[in-house]
Amino acid sequence: MTRIAVVAPGSRLPEASAEIVRALAARVAPEVELVFHPQCYLSHGHFAGTDSERADAFVEVANDPSIDAVWFGRGGYGSCRIAQSAIERLGPAARSKAYMGYSDMGMLMAGLYRRGFGEVAHGPLVNDIVRGGGETAVERALAWLGRRDPSALEPGLDDRPTAAFNIATLSALLGTALQPDLAGHVLLLEEVSEHHYRIDRSLFHITSQPAVRAVAGLRLGRCTLVPDNDPAFALNEEEIARDWCERSGVAWLGRADIGHDAGNKVVPFGRRAAGRRDKIAEA
Amino acid sequence: MTRIAVVAPGSRLPEASAEIVRALAARVAPEVELVFHPQCYLSHGHFAGTDSERADAFVEVANDPSIDAVWFGRGGYGSCRIAQSAIERLGPAARSKAYMGYSDMGMLMAGLYRRGFGEVAHGPLVNDIVRGGGETAVERALAWLGRRDPSALEPGLDDRPTAAFNIATLSALLGTALQPDLAGHVLLLEEVSEHHYRIDRSLFHITSQPAVRAVAGLRLGRCTLVPDNDPAFALNEEEIARDWCERSGVAWLGRADIGHDAGNKVVPFGRRAAGRRDKIAEA
Repeated sequence: MTRIAVVAPGSRLPEASAEIVRALAARVAPEVELVFHPQCYLSHGHFAGTDSERADAFVEVANDPSIDAVWFGRGGYGSCRIAQSAIERLGPAARSKAYMGYSDMGMLMAGLYRRGFGEVAHGPLVNDIVRGGGETAVERALAWLGRRDPSALEPGLDDRPTAAFNIATLSALLGTALQPDLAGHVLLLEEVSEHHYRIDRSLFHITSQPAVRAVAGLRLGRCTLVPDNDPAFALNEEEIARDWCERSGVAWLGRADIGHDAGNKVVPFGRRAAGRRDKIAEA
Repeated sequence: MTRIAVVAPGSRLPEASAEIVRALAARVAPEVELVFHPQCYLSHGHFAGTDSERADAFVEVANDPSIDAVWFGRGGYGSCRIAQSAIERLGPAARSKAYMGYSDMGMLMAGLYRRGFGEVAHGPLVNDIVRGGGETAVERALAWLGRRDPSALEPGLDDRPTAAFNIATLSALLGTALQPDLAGHVLLLEEVSEHHYRIDRSLFHITSQPAVRAVAGLRLGRCTLVPDNDPAFALNEEEIARDWCERSGVAWLGRADIGHDAGNKVVPFGRRAAGRRDKIAEA
């Protein structure tokens, strides 16, 4: 049995989403026990509870040795407000579990990976159940969290270390105490609901960092729900990414199968630990 | 006679704005000659011409010894695409003139200030003429560019060095070759058309930088046209700024009289050069 705790360090997880995912998990992943922390349903303005409530819940489940994985309930916004102080409170039990989410959760995941946490993965959130085809996203998340099913993985991963981020989220953590060392990594990026000019500005920012220029290369996931630019921007998102790669000397490695959608594949940070995956599959 | 060249390193300046400002300048600032570079009116997607066209025009007027000041025509977006390479092409004549603008122009202005250019000022753009009360903004810009009129200055400036930026613009240049040394500076920030959660995220980013934490303090200008947050954010923009100041150890120095509006006062970067101001007034 894999015990997976759900917390929401950013925006609130609707109870209805939790209920649907609980029922789905019982059907498709009987090896998994989902534990929804009541913090998920708190409300404080934009957030799922105050900074203290969100931080405490995350620290509680991360430090709980009976929990095998922390699955983030929803993105939205807010994890940067608690990430650094929460990570400082984590003990040894927090290091032996997996963490999965994306979008705003990239703040926390970056900070965990920076501190050497071995199983941080960019992948679906609980609330992806509300997307079109959301069941497949949730099943994929459970397949990776419960049994490290390789079919959940982004298909282009290779033996190089990897990291994946939402573009605006990565941009906003550069230079902070959350920024991980990405040297030698294949960096996968995705975006949602940003104008092309904002994608361009963020990729200027990201690819202009000396530390980011040490990556092995960049792959661009999907950029969805791009608002109309008036006038139309001169480049589309792939042209923007290729342009900044060329200017910065970062290798352009093509597209990636990640994004703010149900098709979002799992990208474990760092090198994939084949041994650990086998161990879990056998257990 | 002060010769002021207008270029548009980001978005296009409408000819109509130029015509109105030309007529206004003839009436209120006869000591000024405005030279609108034809690049202002070019169009290439989002931009006032291609990257090359915008960079070439800026370099041309900056390097022209017969020009006393470069006044940016409009913000929008695009100066980060040309700033670094353009600045590398500047010669000695570029150092003895003033530069004024704000918003997206902060990218170029940051890079100029980083390289020791002595008269970079955050202040109105030509196209501010289209705002309600825009004539006062343009008259203020001309008063500073033409005669360093102290009444154009932000009223809270003191003897400490100063810099002013749009929040999203500063966030996107941190860690790049455009980032100036802000140690000991009073940092004035303003924002427009950003959700509170984005202001919060950007101020997390800005105040989390070790280099930014060396500022003398932060003053918050106006944050206008904030889109509705759904649900309402927990803090307003002043509470957000005070919160990040407290968390980061940056001194909160109150509000500032800058913003994306006609009231936007002039903030020269660095220490105000009283001697130089007097010299110009006497000339």
